Amino acid sequence: MNISLPRRVVAEFLGTAFLVATVIGSGVMADRLANGNVALALLANTLATGAILVALILAFGQISGAHLNPVVTLMDALEKGLPWTETPYYVLAQVLGGMSGAVIAHLMFSLPAISLSHHARSAPPQVFSEFVATFGLVCVIWGCSRLRCNAVAFGVGAYITAAYWFTASTSFANPAVTIARCVSDTFAGIRPVDVPWFVFAQFLGGFAATMIFRWLMPSLQVRAKEVLLSHDLE
Amino acid sequence: MNISLPRRVVAEFLGTAFLVATVIGSGVMADRLANGNVALALLANTLATGAILVALILAFGQISGAHLNPVVTLMDALEKGLPWTETPYYVLAQVLGGMSGAVIAHLMFSLPAISLSHHARSAPPQVFSEFVATFGLVCVIWGCSRLRCNAVAFGVGAYITAAYWFTASTSFANPAVTIARCVSDTFAGIRPVDVPWFVFAQFLGGFAATMIFRWLMPSLQVRAKEVLLSHDLE
Amino acid sequence: MNISLPRRVVAEFLGTAFLVATVIGSGVMADRLANGNVALALLANTLATGAILVALILAFGQISGAHLNPVVTLMDALEKGLPWTETPYYVLAQVLGGMSGAVIAHLMFSLPAISLSHHARSAPPQVFSEFVATFGLVCVIWGCSRLRCNAVAFGVGAYITAAYWFTASTSFANPAVTIARCVSDTFAGIRPVDVPWFVFAQFLGGFAATMIFRWLMPSLQVRAKEVLLSHDLE
Amino acid sequence: MNISLPRRVVAEFLGTAFLVATVIGSGVMADRLANGNVALALLANTLATGAILVALILAFGQISGAHLNPVVTLMDALEKGLPWTETPYYVLAQVLGGMSGAVIAHLMFSLPAISLSHHARSAPPQVFSEFVATFGLVCVIWGCSRLRCNAVAFGVGAYITAAYWFTASTSFANPAVTIARCVSDTFAGIRPVDVPWFVFAQFLGGFAATMIFRWLMPSLQVRAKEVLLSHDLE
Repeated sequence: MNISLPRRVVAEFLGTAFLVATVIGSGVMADRLANGNVALALLANTLATGAILVALILAFGQISGAHLNPVVTLMDALEKGLPWTETPYYVLAQVLGGMSGAVIAHLMFSLPAISLSHHARSAPPQVFSEFVATFGLVCVIWGCSRLRCNAVAFGVGAYITAAYWFTASTSFANPAVTIARCVSDTFAGIRPVDVPWFVFAQFLGGFAATMIFRWLMPSLQVRAKEVLLSHDLE
Repeated sequence: MNISLPRRVVAEFLGTAFLVATVIGSGVMADRLANGNVALALLANTLATGAILVALILAFGQISGAHLNPVVTLMDALEKGLPWTETPYYVLAQVLGGMSGAVIAHLMFSLPAISLSHHARSAPPQVFSEFVATFGLVCVIWGCSRLRCNAVAFGVGAYITAAYWFTASTSFANPAVTIARCVSDTFAGIRPVDVPWFVFAQFLGGFAATMIFRWLMPSLQVRAKEVLLSHDLE
Repeated sequence: MNISLPRRVVAEFLGTAFLVATVIGSGVMADRLANGNVALALLANTLATGAILVALILAFGQISGAHLNPVVTLMDALEKGLPWTETPYYVLAQVLGGMSGAVIAHLMFSLPAISLSHHARSAPPQVFSEFVATFGLVCVIWGCSRLRCNAVAFGVGAYITAAYWFTASTSFANPAVTIARCVSDTFAGIRPVDVPWFVFAQFLGGFAATMIFRWLMPSLQVRAKEVLLSHDLE
Repeated sequence: MNISLPRRVVAEFLGTAFLVATVIGSGVMADRLANGNVALALLANTLATGAILVALILAFGQISGAHLNPVVTLMDALEKGLPWTETPYYVLAQVLGGMSGAVIAHLMFSLPAISLSHHARSAPPQVFSEFVATFGLVCVIWGCSRLRCNAVAFGVGAYITAAYWFTASTSFANPAVTIARCVSDTFAGIRPVDVPWFVFAQFLGGFAATMIFRWLMPSLQVRAKEVLLSHDLE
């Protein structure tokens, strides 16, 4: 591990900030321009989110692994990728980065820096959707980790592009993003009271995927290290 | 073949489940949000399906070959890729995976777990479209199998993105997906009575493409093995 | 050159047929579903065309170079890539393939096999647009020919996606496609009388780009061979 | 540095011309076809811009580094990539290329060659947005510069696709493009009076990103050379 922890933590902070700024900012822009056409707004929101994931994982993958997601960080630690002692720093950076990204998005669009969301997302099918969404996300990450040519960046970007549409919750699939979205009373928001169930379902989905891939790919624990420091280096 | 059959069969099951969950789930979401604008709904459905194919083939390609399609499995066996004895397990996993994906999509969107489709797709031009669609799909798979850098994932994802629009049937091109879509009375559904013709045309198209590529690429049978266990490993 | 001419010619035929079937077929589908919203129809037409180019160049690039375009074939011959003696076979295959693709698209959508277009595209700015469009296309092809990882497929697919929107002619940029589109009285059609100017501007644009790249990349003639038989082989 | 300065300067001119022609041309086309649906128009504008960046960076990256952006050129010089003495030629080529691209777009769409924009973009949140947009762009460029497989092309294309939506200014992030857009009284235009603040914020954002990456990636100055002449050569 030849990149120091502070550098990696700052990379996680920056990456998650841009991810959340994109999710929320593109939601606001799309909502404003779409004149109530929700399908069109979600299409723009999807395109922006999928694209920024490709860009961010390409950009920060070589520094911190570009987890940008506490579920990914914990599953990577579980598979002996990231040392457990470094996990809290990663998660804290992701949560604070996400909050900062929300604030930055709000400032760009002349909104209050922070405002609690009133967007209810509490129905059981939505919680179930978060389980499915995160299960699939972690499957894609573990599956792509065997490949070269920046497969994780394209795999994750493509997966989330699809998951925005095939899940009833528009696939948050990320506790740091979920927490950040609860302080945004916009298109992408979620009521604080609905956050715990989403986060719980996300960890459960990620854990189930990791257990299945432990069996599917016996070499997973060897690969896990490479998720942290990506294997695309020449 | 260093990955055990049960592992590969589970990968086919999971991959086809996510493929069908995306096709049906994104169809429901798009249909609900698009307010009757079918072009917009199909655009979202297309984006989600093309993207999930990229993600799934990147993720499961190294495990099972990520056929996710009985036509591909049979053509691969025909070219001496997958052993014939393993073919039934692959096909069964794909069909059951597809059905499970339909059920999961329905549960996420609070619909009955299973409901027979009333969406008629019986016109001869649609059956002809399935022949063309699957012919093209298998051409793309055989053609890309010579390339590195995960070309099959991008080739197939891009092809299906186009085929949703250039065929009159929106390009099912996959018997497992076709069967799963007949138990979904939604945007993506197909009446059970129309399934046999679709499936017949799909196999015919795949077979024609394989015969042409046998001549176009004399090394095809060597490559066929690599479709099963992809050649992108470092 | 270890792939026989007949094989390469058939690959050009098949590839151009699928390209034109996509351009015309997706135009018909988009036109039918978009209820007069031309921006939405063109968006779907663009997505399908850009995507099929990625798929076809990945699939047929290793066989024939996947020119799918008489301008590319002639410029490749000019730079001593394809032997001049083989050029007529390539061009003929492209033109016949394009016509076949038009017929196939019409049959899939229950239209007359052939019908002359009434879509006027004769304004000088449109002809100028074809010059610009093909100039850019050939720049992208020569520029990408130095790269690995299937850069030509992604470069061309991305370029045409953009060119559909930034040119006033929606960027035909291909004589074989232009001829095929004049026998299609649909969204993608062009009046036969307007074809000669389009084709003339296309060749002029391709020639100008080739001359500039001859100076920009002194090694161009070495690379030209690799455009024919792509250099992505392992 | 084995490609002569004049060649590299011409590549920067051509690349920036096509970039601006796309930004403005697709804006005009989208605006004309979208019937006042701004979300749909911006979606088309976004798709075209993101796609042309992929194509242009793939095509011109091997010749000049495909900066196409004075901020990138200056930051590359700051990190000892491009020699300072060559910087003015690059910047001049980018600005003149951008202006030429604007003129070409106008001619293709039968508009006056040049017309000053009346599109006000002066609100502080928009200026702040330009800081954020360019900060992110330069982060992505430095981050991707460690990767193979044309990561910069895909990273930048994906980033700008997202940034059109997550910033309140639709992410110009490029002084040459900003100047060119002020002589275009169209969808993509910007009032001349608003240009200085945009350009100032862009340089500031690029500088901040470079300072952070100097610390994040201690090998940055080694990499900077490779941004100029890309490292994807076989």
